[in-house]
Amino acid sequence: MKIIVIGGSAAGPKVASKIRRLDGDAEITIIQKGKFLSMASCGYPYFVGGVFDDPNQLIATPTGVPRDPNFFSAVKNITARVETEALSIDREKKTVRVKHLPSGKEESLSYDKLVLTTGAKPVVPPIPGIDLEGVDSLQSMEDAMKLKEVAKARKCKNIVVIGGGLIGIETCEAFQLAGIHVTVVEMLDQVLPFLDYDMAKLVENHLKAKGVTIITGNGVKAIKGSGAVESVVLSDGSEIPCEQVVFSIGVRPNSGLATQAGLAVGRAGGISVNRFMQTSDPAIYAAGDCVEVTNLITHEKQPWPMGDAANLQGRVAAQNIVLGNVEEYEGIVGTGICKVFDFTAGSTGLSEKKARAEGFENIVTAVHAAPDKPGFMGGQPLIIKLLAEKTSGRLLGMQVVGTGEASKRLAMAAVAIQGRMGISQLVNLDLPYAPPFSPAIDNLITAAHVLENKWRGFMVGISAMELKERLDAGEKPFLLDVRGPDEFEQMRLDVGETLIPLGKVRSNLDKLPKDKTTEIITYCKISLRGWEAACCLKAHGYTNVKVLEGGLAAWPFAKKA
Amino acid sequence: MKIIVIGGSAAGPKVASKIRRLDGDAEITIIQKGKFLSMASCGYPYFVGGVFDDPNQLIATPTGVPRDPNFFSAVKNITARVETEALSIDREKKTVRVKHLPSGKEESLSYDKLVLTTGAKPVVPPIPGIDLEGVDSLQSMEDAMKLKEVAKARKCKNIVVIGGGLIGIETCEAFQLAGIHVTVVEMLDQVLPFLDYDMAKLVENHLKAKGVTIITGNGVKAIKGSGAVESVVLSDGSEIPCEQVVFSIGVRPNSGLATQAGLAVGRAGGISVNRFMQTSDPAIYAAGDCVEVTNLITHEKQPWPMGDAANLQGRVAAQNIVLGNVEEYEGIVGTGICKVFDFTAGSTGLSEKKARAEGFENIVTAVHAAPDKPGFMGGQPLIIKLLAEKTSGRLLGMQVVGTGEASKRLAMAAVAIQGRMGISQLVNLDLPYAPPFSPAIDNLITAAHVLENKWRGFMVGISAMELKERLDAGEKPFLLDVRGPDEFEQMRLDVGETLIPLGKVRSNLDKLPKDKTTEIITYCKISLRGWEAACCLKAHGYTNVKVLEGGLAAWPFAKKA
Repeated sequence: MKIIVIGGSAAGPKVASKIRRLDGDAEITIIQKGKFLSMASCGYPYFVGGVFDDPNQLIATPTGVPRDPNFFSAVKNITARVETEALSIDREKKTVRVKHLPSGKEESLSYDKLVLTTGAKPVVPPIPGIDLEGVDSLQSMEDAMKLKEVAKARKCKNIVVIGGGLIGIETCEAFQLAGIHVTVVEMLDQVLPFLDYDMAKLVENHLKAKGVTIITGNGVKAIKGSGAVESVVLSDGSEIPCEQVVFSIGVRPNSGLATQAGLAVGRAGGISVNRFMQTSDPAIYAAGDCVEVTNLITHEKQPWPMGDAANLQGRVAAQNIVLGNVEEYEGIVGTGICKVFDFTAGSTGLSEKKARAEGFENIVTAVHAAPDKPGFMGGQPLIIKLLAEKTSGRLLGMQVVGTGEASKRLAMAAVAIQGRMGISQLVNLDLPYAPPFSPAIDNLITAAHVLENKWRGFMVGISAMELKERLDAGEKPFLLDVRGPDEFEQMRLDVGETLIPLGKVRSNLDKLPKDKTTEIITYCKISLRGWEAACCLKAHGYTNVKVLEGGLAAWPFAKKA
Repeated sequence: MKIIVIGGSAAGPKVASKIRRLDGDAEITIIQKGKFLSMASCGYPYFVGGVFDDPNQLIATPTGVPRDPNFFSAVKNITARVETEALSIDREKKTVRVKHLPSGKEESLSYDKLVLTTGAKPVVPPIPGIDLEGVDSLQSMEDAMKLKEVAKARKCKNIVVIGGGLIGIETCEAFQLAGIHVTVVEMLDQVLPFLDYDMAKLVENHLKAKGVTIITGNGVKAIKGSGAVESVVLSDGSEIPCEQVVFSIGVRPNSGLATQAGLAVGRAGGISVNRFMQTSDPAIYAAGDCVEVTNLITHEKQPWPMGDAANLQGRVAAQNIVLGNVEEYEGIVGTGICKVFDFTAGSTGLSEKKARAEGFENIVTAVHAAPDKPGFMGGQPLIIKLLAEKTSGRLLGMQVVGTGEASKRLAMAAVAIQGRMGISQLVNLDLPYAPPFSPAIDNLITAAHVLENKWRGFMVGISAMELKERLDAGEKPFLLDVRGPDEFEQMRLDVGETLIPLGKVRSNLDKLPKDKTTEIITYCKISLRGWEAACCLKAHGYTNVKVLEGGLAAWPFAKKA
């Protein structure tokens, strides 16, 4: 069996290697346009930022052997043709026309099965100045090596990163840590669009505290300079001087070859595949950033350009090619994570914004803040937001930000969503507890408790967003801060709130509104004491008590300190 | 409604607090025999070991307020009677006879609902010398304060910890870090009985490397000394000089009061409760270490003395008391974790040993070793063992040891087991991937890939245990190490193996047995290259190739270095 794999980044080498493991006799060829193979492209920002300096680490096996054509040949008996472009596919003849770029030599290669792992390409808008020296993306090994030199040289004083998504923020951190001032420009009103607004604002606060300039709700109109970039002009007319621009406004599936060959392509431009990773031509499979996969919550098809998914899809495609459609790739739930200096920010499933946009209206949410370990073990804060379907209680999404161990909680929630688990299972999870690893009740479980309390109607919550909007509209709800006077002195909302420490609420009811139907909003640092206070007021006949969810820890707006 | 809660450790205060949040009017009394309330008892080893020095941190809220009777009264309107023993229960009259220990005053308190959260007591065998000075458990605040003084004083040179379970190992670390030599004596043939033998041996190797003496397969016959302990005499007659002994051979449910009152008690001595945490008397609920809960995999009832479970059960009991049996506690899957110096060791679900003991015979297992992050991000090794049902593919258990981020993988597996997920879901999980957090394919997923490869018959594995047994029996299987010569030089099995680096296997087939039906066992450091080699040999007609699972990383026996 002759197999051709077009694309040599993540999914391609995985398909080829897995086919080899299952079939010792197949003739396997990888066609790769660039020089490099099997690049750990998610590592580029860390290479640029100086976490490590040897570019070989991006293309080597764990024992340090570069994954070059020799490696593929000697170890895997796979032919890897680099610097070779696939020009076209003839599906009838089952051939691929390829061109060796250095020599210009063209030839046709025949296949029994063809695999498209052509990846994605960065979106670069057609604005003036886009071709100036110093305007780049961070998409290829060459980009990474160039931007690393920029970071190391430290000649540059100002860099503008255009796009505040995952890669943009990782790139921003890399340069800021190299001592270069970074401005992030994002068209939306927040960075990290996979987060809800209030969660994203917490990340923005952290970025700003680290010295990064964040500009949201503004696009790029032009790039100015003579020869090399000198400044960026934004949609609102403002101009930011800089010596380097990095575009990271997203990627688009690289599906030109597939389209040309008449293969079905989805609405977002990705190659259409069935659950076996097979295209509309049964002899052609596809995997990775170039395809559209099923979102297991919305059931919509979407591109999902992530290195982990690419590898898994490649493994599925390989098995199906050799064994005949035995393995299914069900799809994704949409899990993403990002290190942001001392913060971690991540999301799995749907954000509230996305859920509402997709027509999920009957949902319940909860925001929860708490340390990730007992205080005596040095716990660090985590803010978690959960989202569930009201009728079934099924978990739809989870977001997390903070300096604590966020990736564990996110991973658990991702598994729970894929296991279609609901609130009643989450509230009693049997998790690995010991003080070095978590509080006695893990943050994810406590967040589920808050969600259940709201779901069952025991607790009425109000989000930071909603309260802020009401305050901005001139409303003056009765706000009850139940922390200690020292905590209050250090930092507070300072919008006319009343302070009564939790232990004194019961004996100070006379300081509350006489009319027990008046709305009272309680909170503390994380709103655990806030919730105790709300229960206490309810017990004393107050009928309209709400808890500010996540307390001051989850309040992303200005505070008086 | 009058509610009495007997026991003030973990579950009791949780029940009382949650009842208060749901019912502002209930009259709630906690009866606690000791002085302290709401002790973070899982933190004792870290207090003893000097991770923190203020005992107040073990009984204070996150803001530093001690959870004493004043706190319960002022903040929660709960009466907490400390140093008060519950002597008996009169279920007909619905009264509890209590005795204030300092004054000796007795009285009867009436209840509408009674909650038993009486915890567990340490097992201490009736051997000679058990009452000597310097023979303790680590079960109470008083124990913790006493043993902390022992650790701080550094007068003691040798401590014997009897029992190599979770608490024993945590205690061992505490003293060893304080500069005192520790000997752990364990009756079974391994420490940490929740792990399978081969995984536990990896932990033992780490303990030994840290200077701890581990004695397995040996019990304690007597403790010798005049007034204070001077040595421990083991079953085999050997004697270990020491100035302190700590017993940690387990705990037993403290169900005497319940038994006395005629409540149903389970086979293991724990109070029987239904899924609402209600005892055989509908007016009496119970939660925490004193009850038996359902193991969701074996469906057997068992005690599960863990702080996290106690809290969750308390929350369920409270809701059911106030709202009338609305919330279910389904049970546990058996998740435990332990920090062991630089190692983490944990298990969820069934170990292979336990599964076989419970009659699960039709199972498939896989051992997998890999770094927890890309090499360029400083990945640390993790050894994972997975266990699934052969027919359904359902995950039954997961164990993990290593210096990498184990708790995240364990937590994910725990959720997956509770979600009744199987191999086909695990192999394609959508998890939070970015280089600071995991390899592109997370360790749990790769372990599931190995499991699937074995399950589908693509890969034949052999465990370290099985190979060791065969070597010990004098067998000489053909062993093929496919690492590089430098790696081989540094460390190897040294049992007559053949070295052919992976890239040279294809061209050195003449060094392999002529008879292609001969058994060949391949491996490398983690057996990723070992598996590549196995596939290559299979492709060249070898019909009996096995992979040593987890490679040298998971080999817990002697190696030549």
